Amino acid sequence: MRAVVIRDGKIVVEDRPDPVPANLEVLVAVRAAGLNGADILQRDGGYPLPPGVPADLPGMEFAGEVRAAGPGATRFAPGDRVMGLTAAAGQAELVVAHERMLMPVPGRLDWPAAGGLPEVFTTAHDALFTQCGLQAGERLLVHGAAGGVGTAAVQLGRTAGARVSATVRSAKYRDAVAALGADVLSPDGFIDDGPFDVILELVGAPNIRDNLRALRTGGRISVIGTGAGATVHEFPLGLLMARRGRIHGSTLRGRSLEEKALTARAMERSVLPLFAAGELRVPLHRTFPLEQAAAAYDAFAAGGKLGKIVLTV
Amino acid sequence: MRAVVIRDGKIVVEDRPDPVPANLEVLVAVRAAGLNGADILQRDGGYPLPPGVPADLPGMEFAGEVRAAGPGATRFAPGDRVMGLTAAAGQAELVVAHERMLMPVPGRLDWPAAGGLPEVFTTAHDALFTQCGLQAGERLLVHGAAGGVGTAAVQLGRTAGARVSATVRSAKYRDAVAALGADVLSPDGFIDDGPFDVILELVGAPNIRDNLRALRTGGRISVIGTGAGATVHEFPLGLLMARRGRIHGSTLRGRSLEEKALTARAMERSVLPLFAAGELRVPLHRTFPLEQAAAAYDAFAAGGKLGKIVLTV
Repeated sequence: MRAVVIRDGKIVVEDRPDPVPANLEVLVAVRAAGLNGADILQRDGGYPLPPGVPADLPGMEFAGEVRAAGPGATRFAPGDRVMGLTAAAGQAELVVAHERMLMPVPGRLDWPAAGGLPEVFTTAHDALFTQCGLQAGERLLVHGAAGGVGTAAVQLGRTAGARVSATVRSAKYRDAVAALGADVLSPDGFIDDGPFDVILELVGAPNIRDNLRALRTGGRISVIGTGAGATVHEFPLGLLMARRGRIHGSTLRGRSLEEKALTARAMERSVLPLFAAGELRVPLHRTFPLEQAAAAYDAFAAGGKLGKIVLTV
Repeated sequence: MRAVVIRDGKIVVEDRPDPVPANLEVLVAVRAAGLNGADILQRDGGYPLPPGVPADLPGMEFAGEVRAAGPGATRFAPGDRVMGLTAAAGQAELVVAHERMLMPVPGRLDWPAAGGLPEVFTTAHDALFTQCGLQAGERLLVHGAAGGVGTAAVQLGRTAGARVSATVRSAKYRDAVAALGADVLSPDGFIDDGPFDVILELVGAPNIRDNLRALRTGGRISVIGTGAGATVHEFPLGLLMARRGRIHGSTLRGRSLEEKALTARAMERSVLPLFAAGELRVPLHRTFPLEQAAAAYDAFAAGGKLGKIVLTV
């Protein structure tokens, strides 16, 4: 099979042996596979990989057709459309995955959308609902709302009955984010538009103090991205106490197989029905054929995109 | 009635009109009333009082005998032994309180213990269980374990099946804290004894970075006290994310009546039965007669105590 490989800090596409499904695993013929920030960091050698993850095979999500079920695997049959998260090697013609890591692809989704769905919608759903317990009627602020997780979070907040505000770093995407259902605020003036019950932080440390100021009593902040800085200078514990607030940090990738499988069940229960109903969509910035993976990575690293970059097979 | 009053930054005891119970309120003849850090701050003018709280009448907790029930109040009858939190004016011969703020005093508790129980045990129970979800078998670290909240937290953690570690600032109280059920660690070396699932921070900012390092994946930190500093310099969001941790800040005093009443119900359900069974106790540093309130405040402010200072009537 052909697979995306990191060789000496560069993205290449090479022949690799076909994987074979082990007990409870499923062999999937990949049709689309999204790129994520962690892939870029892995290419550049800057991502602390979980144990057992091969450093040269990137790719954290994929969608495709089941080709074969391994011993004992019963959830899916050949021909089924599936998608899911994987610890590595998702950007290849073939992937094997534990059957409980896989989700069915809702009927109306095309392959590029399905290939770019799992990582950002799972991350956003986990942060907003599992961690922060976002409720209907509450006010949600999403910082960095034009990216993959941001566009997912804005839509998930809106469909759950939250009133969604957002900041975007590229002014050119303000209208697109507004069209997803957010009231787009100035990155410098969002405090005046508070208070917010839940704040999803996809930008990083520079926002944290103002987030605390803009937090409603009992509010929750989830920190998922720190591209603009990971160290908060002068973090005010008194304000955190006065707000009776809490700050979560999280990553999806470091979780155990069973924890990730739980997020897949939460997606099946709460998110995929909304895709099936046409109430959610995966904003796609651009697709690239697998063989042009290097160009896709460069486009991702250049930033300033709206939604996902996805490789197609 | 006689009441503790703050006059020009000094504690005096003066005559005040007897309070009258309004709808759903209960008039209590106070027998004991604990001191808390917020009382000292209020005396010194440094505490931001919630709206409607009189700045000159300190006292956040009390225990005593019901003297009369106001219109519609049915939970308690004259002669009942009760205790509870109050927004203010708890250090007086008479107190009125909403009946749902009151809890029955377990039979075996004497008045000084009952008067010093509500604030610290409610604070500790709320932080450990309501906020942090401490579970049996988990490891709990309490920083500042010799104080009122600390001694409560160590005992609550132990009775709930957690394995409790603690740091104390006054080395002379190490043995007493160990006797409550904690493994007492060096304040400088606690990282090596981690990881911990829950950390109760009663000291403040200087511990936060090391707390994050010592946190187990999925761990929770509750910040309740910041006596040693409230500003964290160089707060590492990356470590918070890697730990998939969360940090809560909280105060009890700023909460609404109904929120405080909920904490009283949680106490009745989960804490008072353990007092009734003799499995918990209120460590008392010293009692003072109400008329010697000024000396009691000075003793509290001097620090270095183990457990509560309580006024008796």
